[in-house]
Amino acid sequence: MRNGTSFNYMAAIILLDAVCLLPICVSAANLRFGTNGQFKILQVADMHFANGKSTRCLDVLRSQYASCSDLNTTAFIRRMIHAEKPDLIVFTGDNIYGKDCDDPAKSMDAAFAPAIESSIPWVAVLGNHDQEGSLSRERVMKHIVGLKNTLSKVNPPDVNFIDGFGNYNLEVRGVENSELGNKSVLNLYLLDSGDYSTVPFISGYGWIKPSQQLWYQRKSEKLQRAYKDGPVPQKKAAPGIAYFHIPLPEYARFHPSDFTGVKQESIGSAHVNSGFFTTLIETGDVKAVFTGHDHVNDFCGKLHGIRLCYGGGFGYHAYGKAGWSRRARVVVVSLDKTAKGGWGDVKSVKTWKRLDDQSLTTIDSQVLWTKTVGHR
Amino acid sequence: MRNGTSFNYMAAIILLDAVCLLPICVSAANLRFGTNGQFKILQVADMHFANGKSTRCLDVLRSQYASCSDLNTTAFIRRMIHAEKPDLIVFTGDNIYGKDCDDPAKSMDAAFAPAIESSIPWVAVLGNHDQEGSLSRERVMKHIVGLKNTLSKVNPPDVNFIDGFGNYNLEVRGVENSELGNKSVLNLYLLDSGDYSTVPFISGYGWIKPSQQLWYQRKSEKLQRAYKDGPVPQKKAAPGIAYFHIPLPEYARFHPSDFTGVKQESIGSAHVNSGFFTTLIETGDVKAVFTGHDHVNDFCGKLHGIRLCYGGGFGYHAYGKAGWSRRARVVVVSLDKTAKGGWGDVKSVKTWKRLDDQSLTTIDSQVLWTKTVGHR
Repeated sequence: MRNGTSFNYMAAIILLDAVCLLPICVSAANLRFGTNGQFKILQVADMHFANGKSTRCLDVLRSQYASCSDLNTTAFIRRMIHAEKPDLIVFTGDNIYGKDCDDPAKSMDAAFAPAIESSIPWVAVLGNHDQEGSLSRERVMKHIVGLKNTLSKVNPPDVNFIDGFGNYNLEVRGVENSELGNKSVLNLYLLDSGDYSTVPFISGYGWIKPSQQLWYQRKSEKLQRAYKDGPVPQKKAAPGIAYFHIPLPEYARFHPSDFTGVKQESIGSAHVNSGFFTTLIETGDVKAVFTGHDHVNDFCGKLHGIRLCYGGGFGYHAYGKAGWSRRARVVVVSLDKTAKGGWGDVKSVKTWKRLDDQSLTTIDSQVLWTKTVGHR
Repeated sequence: MRNGTSFNYMAAIILLDAVCLLPICVSAANLRFGTNGQFKILQVADMHFANGKSTRCLDVLRSQYASCSDLNTTAFIRRMIHAEKPDLIVFTGDNIYGKDCDDPAKSMDAAFAPAIESSIPWVAVLGNHDQEGSLSRERVMKHIVGLKNTLSKVNPPDVNFIDGFGNYNLEVRGVENSELGNKSVLNLYLLDSGDYSTVPFISGYGWIKPSQQLWYQRKSEKLQRAYKDGPVPQKKAAPGIAYFHIPLPEYARFHPSDFTGVKQESIGSAHVNSGFFTTLIETGDVKAVFTGHDHVNDFCGKLHGIRLCYGGGFGYHAYGKAGWSRRARVVVVSLDKTAKGGWGDVKSVKTWKRLDDQSLTTIDSQVLWTKTVGHR
């Protein structure tokens, strides 16, 4: 138990207007680093949104319960956007809690409203609960893709077959008019980690399938080739980051002394290993993986050079731990300076979390990757 | 140590003529069950063939050493073919030991000669040692494909990209003129499990990649659809069997009390799990996997309904255990009778091993799968 101030104090107070909060507005079509040489990503894990004001919170202190609803989740997103001014918001699934939604489409509209009204590009992938209402997994993803300011896609257009809904990548180019202004210097991979096992004698959650792994692998190879080819050929792959919902079985490999953050529940990965971690290792560009799913785990560990991190539970209509603040993860990717003094390639990937307490306390700041140390 | 009579007594005695030993000659183009309702497969694992008579044996008794060479491997194959009269011979890699071959092509010609001269259809996949001579992995596989009576293929013609060399499938149709005479009632999947890890910080052996897994999965789905469609639509998938060289990490899951055969060395799988076992479970048709690679392991275990088996070390120029016979695995797939009394679908998969002793002793007979028990 880290914090006793686990309540969204601002829920009913601040309602930010729909404004673009970025120093330089990021075009939805072309993500790129800002002129400060940084790209900041806000991860929102497990909102579990349902019907708004009438949907009660779970696992909050008795004193907080009466006034707590989905609107606390909404307010927390707004506060996070205001405080961090991210360049991209990534919702890593269980965005809505399908079973409790009167109308899943309306629930999604409300859940993503703070992102939409901020004019910041945002994306979402699916968890295991999103399709448990009246909309199928495919229809949930299609609804998301149709919302304003999102860069989400149902699936990549250039493959004949892929499992799941919500597998796509985002390319983040260097600073405009810099040497790498027309190259993707940071690659984001968004994947559908499924919902539940469809094998009768294997219980538990879903997994990332060979078709998705092959798509990632080939997309990465293509991006790596482009990065290493002229103009301005680069020697190594641009770093990648993967976002999806269900943690990989490898998240269970860490001893608590080996990671930053906490592990307060068992790792809710699939009961089988579908090999995605091996595919990530082999392909080589992804330096960090961020998932949700286990609300009261929020750690980052490191295995074979890849960081495996949780976002930490964000939503109030999701199980949690009373007195243990809901939280969000921020990732900041920073560029290096070139010999000529302009902005170049990625120098570092850093992260921290913010708690939904009065001061949005920052915790667990850490460097996840740097170009000079641990670059492979 | 199970047997003290570990020497190929027939090496210099019996040289069978090149004859077709089958009750009904199986056409190389169309494998099918014989009129006895059976299909028998001989697995030859880890021949480690090099230069023939001048290549010495490893790990045989001191008394056997002087007269022991690659020719003992050759004689053992001939004896096995004569004794078992298989319908198909499957060589599961490390067919030659590249490093010791003066001419890998000649080594292969000699290694596969007993299969070729028998006129029995045969196939081979690659191990980790086949390409360690002057021929690349691709050229080794291409040489194999060019040999007589083989059904081996370099790779499936209907996919754009696949890792490795030697990924293909074989369809075994029902008895001629029976109800299922035009359907594949048994599907064999042959895969290239790689040689060594290409990831700098991961040591050890290779693994089956997403591209290969997706190929298997889609091929299986296609075969399952065809089997369940008319004419003579079937309710469940036809059973499948997979052959490759390097054991899956799941081979290490068994306690010695849980399997038939012996485990006398650690499981030489890749140091990472690439998920092929999960893909097999999910796809659902493969009932048994047969590998080689670990010469002094010869067990069959069962995990999540799938048998994971070793062939047992076959070759004399391969490490082994002096006094512990070289061995081969036989699999017999038997058909059921239909209500009308004709041959139908697969009823059972059975296996045993034969030792290269004076009487080719049969050991460890066991039922691997039956239609009624354990069919999923």
